[in-house]
Amino acid sequence: MSEPLFLRACRGETTERTPLWLMRQAGRYLPEYRAVRAGVSFLELCKSPKLAAEVTLQPIRRFGFDAAILFSDLLVPLEAMGLAVEFTDEGPRLPDPVRTPHDVGRLSRFDPAARTGFVLETIAALTRELGDTPLIGFAGAPFTVATYAIEGKTGKSFVDTKRLFYERPDDARRLLNVIAEATRDYLLAQIHAGARAVQLFDSWVGVLSAEDFETFALSPTAALVAALRATGVPVIYFGNGASGILDRVARVGADVYGVDWRLPIDEARARLGGARAVQGNLDPAVLLGPLPEIERRARDVVRRGGKRGHIFNLGHGITPDVPVEAVSALVAAVRSA
Amino acid sequence: MSEPLFLRACRGETTERTPLWLMRQAGRYLPEYRAVRAGVSFLELCKSPKLAAEVTLQPIRRFGFDAAILFSDLLVPLEAMGLAVEFTDEGPRLPDPVRTPHDVGRLSRFDPAARTGFVLETIAALTRELGDTPLIGFAGAPFTVATYAIEGKTGKSFVDTKRLFYERPDDARRLLNVIAEATRDYLLAQIHAGARAVQLFDSWVGVLSAEDFETFALSPTAALVAALRATGVPVIYFGNGASGILDRVARVGADVYGVDWRLPIDEARARLGGARAVQGNLDPAVLLGPLPEIERRARDVVRRGGKRGHIFNLGHGITPDVPVEAVSALVAAVRSA
Repeated sequence: MSEPLFLRACRGETTERTPLWLMRQAGRYLPEYRAVRAGVSFLELCKSPKLAAEVTLQPIRRFGFDAAILFSDLLVPLEAMGLAVEFTDEGPRLPDPVRTPHDVGRLSRFDPAARTGFVLETIAALTRELGDTPLIGFAGAPFTVATYAIEGKTGKSFVDTKRLFYERPDDARRLLNVIAEATRDYLLAQIHAGARAVQLFDSWVGVLSAEDFETFALSPTAALVAALRATGVPVIYFGNGASGILDRVARVGADVYGVDWRLPIDEARARLGGARAVQGNLDPAVLLGPLPEIERRARDVVRRGGKRGHIFNLGHGITPDVPVEAVSALVAAVRSA
Repeated sequence: MSEPLFLRACRGETTERTPLWLMRQAGRYLPEYRAVRAGVSFLELCKSPKLAAEVTLQPIRRFGFDAAILFSDLLVPLEAMGLAVEFTDEGPRLPDPVRTPHDVGRLSRFDPAARTGFVLETIAALTRELGDTPLIGFAGAPFTVATYAIEGKTGKSFVDTKRLFYERPDDARRLLNVIAEATRDYLLAQIHAGARAVQLFDSWVGVLSAEDFETFALSPTAALVAALRATGVPVIYFGNGASGILDRVARVGADVYGVDWRLPIDEARARLGGARAVQGNLDPAVLLGPLPEIERRARDVVRRGGKRGHIFNLGHGITPDVPVEAVSALVAAVRSA
């Protein structure tokens, strides 16, 4: 019995066809997701194992993607670390963000079973339902999670984060390290519950200079990746906006590098030093265009990705306004490429 | 009599010290700017030659920067092309954006003297006042201006722009071309009025894939740059977020490439194919940090920029919350580096 296609590609193997899944595939572009979401708040959905498992499964049923990704949110472990989190129509809000050295001390490692049991239950339920389709667990990368802790919301120019880095670099490192350690515990628990791969989303790493990436983000991220890889489960690192510094990104030591849409995936792979496995990288906005254009560009990504260690994905999460037919056309194009 | 330091650096010459100016140096971080702005709206300030000249001069008087940059806004020529523009507390709003093929036809070239006489008067007044300090004229690059025309505001995921590109590529090219032609006329008039260099701001080019940059943005931008360079006045192209595609960016054919803060400037220059002149690239957020850190990082940029064809600048506009003392420390560090 060989491993599923997705996992083999994660390990850098050559696959007979290119496996595919889409970031945010369980999401608002799906009418069946909107139906579930109509009855509950976003946070209720994240915290209900039954409903979170249901929306995780929806895109697998409809499109037969080669991997499922846990439905959850980047801020779930941050709340478990001790910071209050609210979800508003304008996005997440942390009413009491990290501003002083004392604030850093408010964050701590946590017991995943005690504080995020609903996530582990969701994973256990999914493991029973998914059959051969691997489930990807996930969390934010330390830098990205830290921006929420510091900015108190989705950052814009990230000046509060950078001010902390420059004014109190030791506190910044302490914050990043405690986030990395808590995230390690959290993802190890996800793996123990049944996740067969894990992805770290570094959604905001693209705002950092190469120097700041190396000084602050790299070391806690690399330590986290190493601890996760020790389980034998593949680790995917997705750094959004990092196409300029892929040579540095490669030093986080992941099995798979998720790359955004800005650079053709063959060039991105070369800049990563010939990464064993890459994931990406169609611009999600292409899914708003005509079907022939979607198909042409999808085939181009498949061709550039090659047959060895390539997982087809978008270069960022799918957006709510994408027509379902566009996704069907994409899936067919990737499968037949 | 040799040319001013800034212009010699623009031409790729070796200079005895590194010239410097800062993007958005005439801005809200200066108390004397806030004093002027307290009495008038942003648009009134842009359209008053007396006040626009005054705020342009303020940072020259205070810091003795090696170049002044016209105080104006990217949307001034777009309004002159025929689109209504409003400035709100939430940023610019275009109540009637470009959505249909018919809408593209609503934009046209314009007579800069008739429609933007206030800009040319500002430049003429500045030319009299500035003495040896060169004045930089500016406009948005065609792609960035097009995003405002299409999105009707500062874009976020730029899906309307990309949808137009994919669904109606010929209309998109027609729009980009008319913007490029109008911008050419507008900047030629700025040069005629006294601007001694011009900068094109491609603030949003970083949202494009390499393919979309090559398919849509490159050709109208390169044509615009070539027409401006024919005057003998140096052309600076600043592409924000473009560190991943600098090899493509180099094909716009500018004299000077402004680079953001994401990549060390020596590496950026190498990726530009060894550009004759570069401008940048300290992260503006560094100016929120302690003075020794500002000085250390500024000296590093000067060292990496080298003595040949380097203009010191930030990697993006200075932000309103920067202390004036931080700018003084920066200027002293660059001058003494």
